[in-house]
Amino acid sequence: MLSFESDYIKGAHEKILERLCEMNQDPQPGYGSDACCERAKEKIRKACGCPDADIFFLTGGTQTNAIVIDGMLRPFEGVIAADSGHVSVHEAGAIEFTGHKVLTVPGADGKIQPKVLRGYLENFWNDGNHDHMVFPGMVYISHPTEYGTLYCRKELEDLADICQEYQIPLYMDGARLGYGLMSKESDLTLQDIARLCDVFYIGGTKVGALFGEAVVFTRHNTPKHFITRIKRQGGLLAKGWLLGVQFDVLFTDDLYYEISRQAIRTAEQMKQGFLERGYQLLIDSPTNQQFVILENTEMERLKEKIGFSFWEKIDDAHTAVRFAASWATTESEVRELLKILDEIHEEKEG
Amino acid sequence: MLSFESDYIKGAHEKILERLCEMNQDPQPGYGSDACCERAKEKIRKACGCPDADIFFLTGGTQTNAIVIDGMLRPFEGVIAADSGHVSVHEAGAIEFTGHKVLTVPGADGKIQPKVLRGYLENFWNDGNHDHMVFPGMVYISHPTEYGTLYCRKELEDLADICQEYQIPLYMDGARLGYGLMSKESDLTLQDIARLCDVFYIGGTKVGALFGEAVVFTRHNTPKHFITRIKRQGGLLAKGWLLGVQFDVLFTDDLYYEISRQAIRTAEQMKQGFLERGYQLLIDSPTNQQFVILENTEMERLKEKIGFSFWEKIDDAHTAVRFAASWATTESEVRELLKILDEIHEEKEG
Amino acid sequence: MLSFESDYIKGAHEKILERLCEMNQDPQPGYGSDACCERAKEKIRKACGCPDADIFFLTGGTQTNAIVIDGMLRPFEGVIAADSGHVSVHEAGAIEFTGHKVLTVPGADGKIQPKVLRGYLENFWNDGNHDHMVFPGMVYISHPTEYGTLYCRKELEDLADICQEYQIPLYMDGARLGYGLMSKESDLTLQDIARLCDVFYIGGTKVGALFGEAVVFTRHNTPKHFITRIKRQGGLLAKGWLLGVQFDVLFTDDLYYEISRQAIRTAEQMKQGFLERGYQLLIDSPTNQQFVILENTEMERLKEKIGFSFWEKIDDAHTAVRFAASWATTESEVRELLKILDEIHEEKEG
Amino acid sequence: MLSFESDYIKGAHEKILERLCEMNQDPQPGYGSDACCERAKEKIRKACGCPDADIFFLTGGTQTNAIVIDGMLRPFEGVIAADSGHVSVHEAGAIEFTGHKVLTVPGADGKIQPKVLRGYLENFWNDGNHDHMVFPGMVYISHPTEYGTLYCRKELEDLADICQEYQIPLYMDGARLGYGLMSKESDLTLQDIARLCDVFYIGGTKVGALFGEAVVFTRHNTPKHFITRIKRQGGLLAKGWLLGVQFDVLFTDDLYYEISRQAIRTAEQMKQGFLERGYQLLIDSPTNQQFVILENTEMERLKEKIGFSFWEKIDDAHTAVRFAASWATTESEVRELLKILDEIHEEKEG
Repeated sequence: MLSFESDYIKGAHEKILERLCEMNQDPQPGYGSDACCERAKEKIRKACGCPDADIFFLTGGTQTNAIVIDGMLRPFEGVIAADSGHVSVHEAGAIEFTGHKVLTVPGADGKIQPKVLRGYLENFWNDGNHDHMVFPGMVYISHPTEYGTLYCRKELEDLADICQEYQIPLYMDGARLGYGLMSKESDLTLQDIARLCDVFYIGGTKVGALFGEAVVFTRHNTPKHFITRIKRQGGLLAKGWLLGVQFDVLFTDDLYYEISRQAIRTAEQMKQGFLERGYQLLIDSPTNQQFVILENTEMERLKEKIGFSFWEKIDDAHTAVRFAASWATTESEVRELLKILDEIHEEKEG
Repeated sequence: MLSFESDYIKGAHEKILERLCEMNQDPQPGYGSDACCERAKEKIRKACGCPDADIFFLTGGTQTNAIVIDGMLRPFEGVIAADSGHVSVHEAGAIEFTGHKVLTVPGADGKIQPKVLRGYLENFWNDGNHDHMVFPGMVYISHPTEYGTLYCRKELEDLADICQEYQIPLYMDGARLGYGLMSKESDLTLQDIARLCDVFYIGGTKVGALFGEAVVFTRHNTPKHFITRIKRQGGLLAKGWLLGVQFDVLFTDDLYYEISRQAIRTAEQMKQGFLERGYQLLIDSPTNQQFVILENTEMERLKEKIGFSFWEKIDDAHTAVRFAASWATTESEVRELLKILDEIHEEKEG
Repeated sequence: MLSFESDYIKGAHEKILERLCEMNQDPQPGYGSDACCERAKEKIRKACGCPDADIFFLTGGTQTNAIVIDGMLRPFEGVIAADSGHVSVHEAGAIEFTGHKVLTVPGADGKIQPKVLRGYLENFWNDGNHDHMVFPGMVYISHPTEYGTLYCRKELEDLADICQEYQIPLYMDGARLGYGLMSKESDLTLQDIARLCDVFYIGGTKVGALFGEAVVFTRHNTPKHFITRIKRQGGLLAKGWLLGVQFDVLFTDDLYYEISRQAIRTAEQMKQGFLERGYQLLIDSPTNQQFVILENTEMERLKEKIGFSFWEKIDDAHTAVRFAASWATTESEVRELLKILDEIHEEKEG
Repeated sequence: MLSFESDYIKGAHEKILERLCEMNQDPQPGYGSDACCERAKEKIRKACGCPDADIFFLTGGTQTNAIVIDGMLRPFEGVIAADSGHVSVHEAGAIEFTGHKVLTVPGADGKIQPKVLRGYLENFWNDGNHDHMVFPGMVYISHPTEYGTLYCRKELEDLADICQEYQIPLYMDGARLGYGLMSKESDLTLQDIARLCDVFYIGGTKVGALFGEAVVFTRHNTPKHFITRIKRQGGLLAKGWLLGVQFDVLFTDDLYYEISRQAIRTAEQMKQGFLERGYQLLIDSPTNQQFVILENTEMERLKEKIGFSFWEKIDDAHTAVRFAASWATTESEVRELLKILDEIHEEKEG
């Protein structure tokens, strides 16, 4: 069945599988100490314009968030996040499992507004009682956010300035980073992000890899003995080269950008198609996820033919749902989607 | 200096000290296995009308919250609390230290409204994605709340009904329980609370004891090997009889009630005095804490003569402050406070 | 370079890669809720003779140990392990990270002897002071052990009996389980293990898969909401079908057994070759890992030509090293190894 | 009944109670920010000859160990302790609860021998695989040990040298420190200890106080925001002055030394009495705890008349038991004990 359920419904880009099969019988040293990981790291450093960055590969997003955040925070600190942030809501308490609080601030379409961040920090430091509170020790943002929205360069610079002023690191969850970078509305490059963030990760799982995320510490600010910490938190892959090979391919000949651009293209066709047919969007997302409001009866009909995901209830008769394009989505799949929408519409009208 | 800074500025009621001095040279078995603890537990069971309750004594409020909440929650669960709850804001992340999330809901003057609780639970269980979220596993309320407000019997019954419906325990933080019970506005008895809550604690530190809180598990629902858990979390007092003797005295001849009533009496004189002098209250508290709005200049003058605590900024010219009465507050102290207020007023007018 | 450094130096069995490539473009639901995982589970249930077993796939061994052990223990309990156990020594404190103690007992060539286990448990329960101690709540064994040794059926039955008597689960770390089952000295079948253990895992990472371990709860004794616990501990793979497909292939047409048998065959050729050449073994291992004592000078010469791993220092002139065969080791590789040994010997003699 | 069951069976030295009662009605600022704590700290600094030491008061020993050890260790580190150490065995996993491993080494009568420590550290750092192991990040010793034994100055200097060489802190658990300092066999002063240890605590609970331990960081090496960490771990006492007043009295006019000396005197009379009567000692303890081997029948008779504690089984007919003297033990109590021993002996002979 045609599916837009998420951006991780398919395996990996063909080039990754090819390379993986080629290397399959070559003996490799364990735990990411192989040449392939080294090559991938070097390519990422170049792409980031950050020759001295420290890079680590991890298996998935929640694991990455837990290990990076626990690694950067001191014991008496928590991480500031938007109330809709993935670490706040959808990681089953993985941050709290490491002993740290997620300090939520109200988000604006998934983003932390600089003035909200500043207000939070000012209030904390002005409160004479803050020795009995969790210290804000880091800022977590996702880009694109869980709502598909993007920070503009000015916003990211402002957040970075505030973090620098309060001497706390800025961390970007880039699970869908490629789709953010290739959005037509983005005025941020990977180099900008590497310059403005203290640490961020480049998502592979949702952007062309079988699995894997590349963590970039941009200022030689890796927590000490990070490999041991990864091991302690159960995230060290024996065959680490499996992660290296995927990012090596993704960062060869701009493949990461190219497949992300393709996802944006199909997402825009999808969005255009919805708008032309009079659908309302929940949020105006410039990235690969599109949030559309459907009548419940129409939603039920559509569900029989196409995969998509429930997002939130709007009212008794309407529901917001998500259609996700990905690196693997084709233009003909979008045409098929729109054709089915038209058919349902005609049946209804007829 | 005359001080209303908190309800824990003084030591213990004289009768407690007397009894403690009498017992000082009697050898006692360790860790609360003594006859004095047993006596105190028996008296509390009677006062609660709960002959089978399991009772444990701990040293302080944050310790008690962390041990009880961690003890009652399963690993994948968090505790629901008002956003102003002590466990949410003022315990330095003690709950998260145990690996659990505090799931905040918007409070109403410090209270969780039954409909808000119901809405939260319904939303959680309706969300198809909740396997990736922290399960709501317990409800934490404070009574009186951090704002000095009280649940009425109907509200507590509604909360208890909802908890029963969802099969999660209701936990009451009774750091200032005596002041709640003796408030003129209270329609809840200790027996009601024991009947409606699954676990609660009777605060000693702020109500006549040197230190100590009595945890009451009302349905033989004590977590297994609770003593070992207390030890593991660093809360087991070698000379546990020190806690027993204090609660033994507090629950002899209704001393706990009597001294709480005295605090309510002086708190009301204070409140009356403020209102007669035209002061605005931040919250209309029927218990021992009074939250008054002062002009900043007046606040500065007052600060030189009397101890009280900063609560929150109202605007550039006004601040809300807290005056706490306690078991140790006398009527002459209140008269002295009001006299000083009048003097400052006269100076200003003059 | 010819390498016997570990059993995870190569990728996956060809059949796994083929199947993975075939499925690469098929959309799959996330987090292991796909048909391929279901198929794999069904095959494992059959192989275990345990139709009602609950099965979960995880990414690696340390992650699996941490999630299973934390999942089975109650907060006041620790896990008993041999002092040489992987969880005791080589997992960077992953168990302690979850808040639990590893209670070590002296191992015998990596194994826990039933009488040692019984002694430990008797001592604990006889100690009047045990409320201040960590309760033994589970037994962890590895099979094959870290020294390549095996439990015989009698030993496993005795351990299982003791665990049942004390009502604590028996957990087997089967990172190299296939090599244990196919050892000529093994009198244990997979069905025996499923019958005797409360939970165990079938290792994929070291036995033919790219990565992945299959956890088997044999008595419908899965900890509640285990998926949420996995998520909380950062172990939930978005594309869970990647694990399913690997175990589906491994448990089709006895592939898991067949490739394990192949590793045992080459390991025995290796062992035979060492013994014929007069080498001493550190331990007489009947599985895929061989522990050989080398003169240091010879070791240095060999290191230039062949990969193997340091095990432990014997004396100033000798070192024990490990040669690991795996599913991917060929007979010609073993012949090549023995040829090189002979060459080095001749040079030395010459 | 006459009891030698432990050194915490009685309350506090009279002078402490007197002072506490005097201060009972004086309002004090909360959480240890009072003048009395300040005075006590100043006196302890003087006694330690360590004018710049940072000092904190905590409630009990397990709490202190957990907070100090968690505070000093980095996340990837564990604490080295003797296998008989209190943190290893009798704190219900309180260290593991904070996420850290206790790395045990074989003790010699409760002590870590310098050569054993050096061997452990050398082995760890020589192991090429140590990235997968828990890093040794601190050394924990108890003085007197759990067996009543003492480090001599040379041993402590050697341990301190090794710690300095490996740049890890040396921590002394001084739950019974006074009895160590006043032992006739001690060649260590409090100043020596303050000079050689990075952090240690002076026990109050077992040495004259109702409860309380004074932690001394000797090199301005307090973990950052230590008050917040104490709060987070549930150890912050609201009426912190209760701890201050006790140590203020204990360190006035050498009271701490004086009462400790008295305990040593009675312990020695006890020991002498046992030896004169032909009893065997389990360990030759020069401090307040005496470990005596009794025939089981005699032990049962004695149990009816005197409190003492079970230590360990020797053989089917004999048991080692502990008699503890304390600051509160009188010479007449010892005479009474010896008289009862004689009576039991006579009955048996008769």
